[in-house]
Amino acid sequence: MYRTPASNRLHIGIFGKRNTGKSSLINAVTGQDTAIVSEVAGTTTDPVYKAMEILPIGPCMLIDTAGIDDEGLLGDERVKRTLVVLRKTDVGLIVVAPDTKIDNFEEELVKTFKSKKLPFLFIINKCELPGEEAQKYLEESKLPYIKVSAKTNQGIAELKQKIMDIAPGHWSPIPLVADIIDPKDVVVLVCPIDSAMPQGRLILPQVQVMRDCLDSNATALVTKETELLDCLKALKEKPRLVITDSQVFEDVRDMLPAGIPLTSFSTVFARHKGDLNVYIQGVYALEGLKDGDEILIAEACTHHVQPEDIGRTKIPTWFLDHTKKELHYEVTAGGDFPQDISRYKLIISCGGCMVNRREIMHRIEKAREAHVPITNYGILMAYLSGILERIIAPFEGGLVKLDLEFDKAAKGQ
Amino acid sequence: MYRTPASNRLHIGIFGKRNTGKSSLINAVTGQDTAIVSEVAGTTTDPVYKAMEILPIGPCMLIDTAGIDDEGLLGDERVKRTLVVLRKTDVGLIVVAPDTKIDNFEEELVKTFKSKKLPFLFIINKCELPGEEAQKYLEESKLPYIKVSAKTNQGIAELKQKIMDIAPGHWSPIPLVADIIDPKDVVVLVCPIDSAMPQGRLILPQVQVMRDCLDSNATALVTKETELLDCLKALKEKPRLVITDSQVFEDVRDMLPAGIPLTSFSTVFARHKGDLNVYIQGVYALEGLKDGDEILIAEACTHHVQPEDIGRTKIPTWFLDHTKKELHYEVTAGGDFPQDISRYKLIISCGGCMVNRREIMHRIEKAREAHVPITNYGILMAYLSGILERIIAPFEGGLVKLDLEFDKAAKGQ
Repeated sequence: MYRTPASNRLHIGIFGKRNTGKSSLINAVTGQDTAIVSEVAGTTTDPVYKAMEILPIGPCMLIDTAGIDDEGLLGDERVKRTLVVLRKTDVGLIVVAPDTKIDNFEEELVKTFKSKKLPFLFIINKCELPGEEAQKYLEESKLPYIKVSAKTNQGIAELKQKIMDIAPGHWSPIPLVADIIDPKDVVVLVCPIDSAMPQGRLILPQVQVMRDCLDSNATALVTKETELLDCLKALKEKPRLVITDSQVFEDVRDMLPAGIPLTSFSTVFARHKGDLNVYIQGVYALEGLKDGDEILIAEACTHHVQPEDIGRTKIPTWFLDHTKKELHYEVTAGGDFPQDISRYKLIISCGGCMVNRREIMHRIEKAREAHVPITNYGILMAYLSGILERIIAPFEGGLVKLDLEFDKAAKGQ
Repeated sequence: MYRTPASNRLHIGIFGKRNTGKSSLINAVTGQDTAIVSEVAGTTTDPVYKAMEILPIGPCMLIDTAGIDDEGLLGDERVKRTLVVLRKTDVGLIVVAPDTKIDNFEEELVKTFKSKKLPFLFIINKCELPGEEAQKYLEESKLPYIKVSAKTNQGIAELKQKIMDIAPGHWSPIPLVADIIDPKDVVVLVCPIDSAMPQGRLILPQVQVMRDCLDSNATALVTKETELLDCLKALKEKPRLVITDSQVFEDVRDMLPAGIPLTSFSTVFARHKGDLNVYIQGVYALEGLKDGDEILIAEACTHHVQPEDIGRTKIPTWFLDHTKKELHYEVTAGGDFPQDISRYKLIISCGGCMVNRREIMHRIEKAREAHVPITNYGILMAYLSGILERIIAPFEGGLVKLDLEFDKAAKGQ
């Protein structure tokens, strides 16, 4: 996981007065199951960034603000430096001791977190020591807190779970493309323009991938499918990667010279917002379906207008064609899965463009608990068109190891 | 103006029952001062698109929906076709006669316009004829209307003004780059990434220019300034145009080989949302300033945080340096100009990123009425850095003829 770009690490800012045990807390959180990747030492008042792997959260960046405590700096300068750290912070932790007198220092932080709409949590550290001032204040002010002891490890596991729970729902440890491209690469993005596109702009997933290219010191060549060949001709060398909108996938594949890696925006986001391995594994369940099996088609929102109804019309037609089995479908839209999902033989989730990663991972987790295979629209369509291998190939050297064993198993190898 | 891309024409959808005089109305509106550029005849139920120049509105696309009237189609099919037209409509006109019994047909249209948040207007045509049913209904329903006669031309001028008034404020007859690039061109967009950028995406002006490139069948190569040279090397030929964020303008200019046209996003938008000629003319007023002259610096919004204050700090410093005169500054933020602007010798408007074209044109109009030169931040900074000629050069072959005479005059040629 060493290649995780900084932007895909959960940035945890740790604030607190001197002598509340911030350093020992960081050691306790990262102690057993972490690897310190790098530590950038700064001057005493500069925050220290520590890239770490904290299970079960994943890749994190701990920001130790030891220099921004109550003694190091005066009020105004402290606020200024806090704001700089907060620009990079996903979750804020405010550390106090049981006998800490919570005052203007912590109140200032709470105010700033709230104004920035950043999730935060008080940690009453050294809970093995006496003192009730801090807890009393937090109870009265209705501020969220957790009691831990860096010394005895009490509450540390709960703290990590809590951090996961309050982390922004869109946060993902998996980049869009940063881990599969290199600086100076040219990445071609094929963005067809049709009447469903908003006027005068591009859709967010396309822009997000562009930004990830720039953040990786690569460049993005944006084209419609109709100019793709001209734009390839304009380049001296083959591009590193072509990413296309799924709706023109077949056109693009047919015109692209062999040897140019090709994937789709929906695959990029299936990996970033979900679990590509689970989806790939899930899609092979198709081959084992029997007459009478029940399939759950789960759409995340009710208001997304599809030009033709994928869930209700297209999938049943494709499945009949592919499996020759008589299958039963249930379609849910919006909200959560049905209460009992164990009776389904396969769950097919929509692309999830309108929901965040936390929601998608929650669904994947529920499917896993019920031992029901789950896949999504993009992966399913790629599999049915026989292009699954090609669109996942660009990710093979990526951060997430692709587990392709079941592929061979499904093919009887 | 023949090169105006369809997307920069104001699309006016004309609806109404049969025999309300839609065709003669179109003739009256376009009669004296228009040129019919093209007319795509369709089957009788297809809408007819007429590209026209209607003064004072500018380039328009009239959509004649004669086939979607009350007799041509049944309800459902009518709604469906109306929705297709509305996807391209900026302003809707519903034509009735004085004795028209307004019913479900018009009510359906009003409902659809409202749900699409599209501006619309009833036109009581043939107002030289008797009948009060239509007007009575519209008064009671508080729906906006205007009375005209296609026969006598009564109200036609007011109608055109009214269309301008209700047209969406962002609508512009001037494209971003569509008129200065050709199909298959490669346009390089330099987008620096700094801490002021939103996380994980690009800013809207950059995306809008990309989209305009795609709509023009060109491609956009998106890069940071640090990869610009590598990305130029990746191309077989020089790009058609390089557009850069102003903050790295000097870096980009210095590294760009001679002969590659270069401009900035702020110049693109100064032309699209304002009047480039007025701004260029305005900036030369700088050379005639005298001790004691008053300058108005007009910022459009109060909440835009500038890293350093351009209006209050930078401009006075630059001006002193450039003119050696003692000048007085007044800075307004948000709202409108001061009541009396005639005492100013120069007005400098902000980039106007947060306001729409209508608002900017309104300010330009007020400055023109008061005979006060007006320019904007981007053009001013380009002039002071001696790069104005270079950044406006790419627009010389464009839709709007650049009037550069005053340039020579200012230089005493």
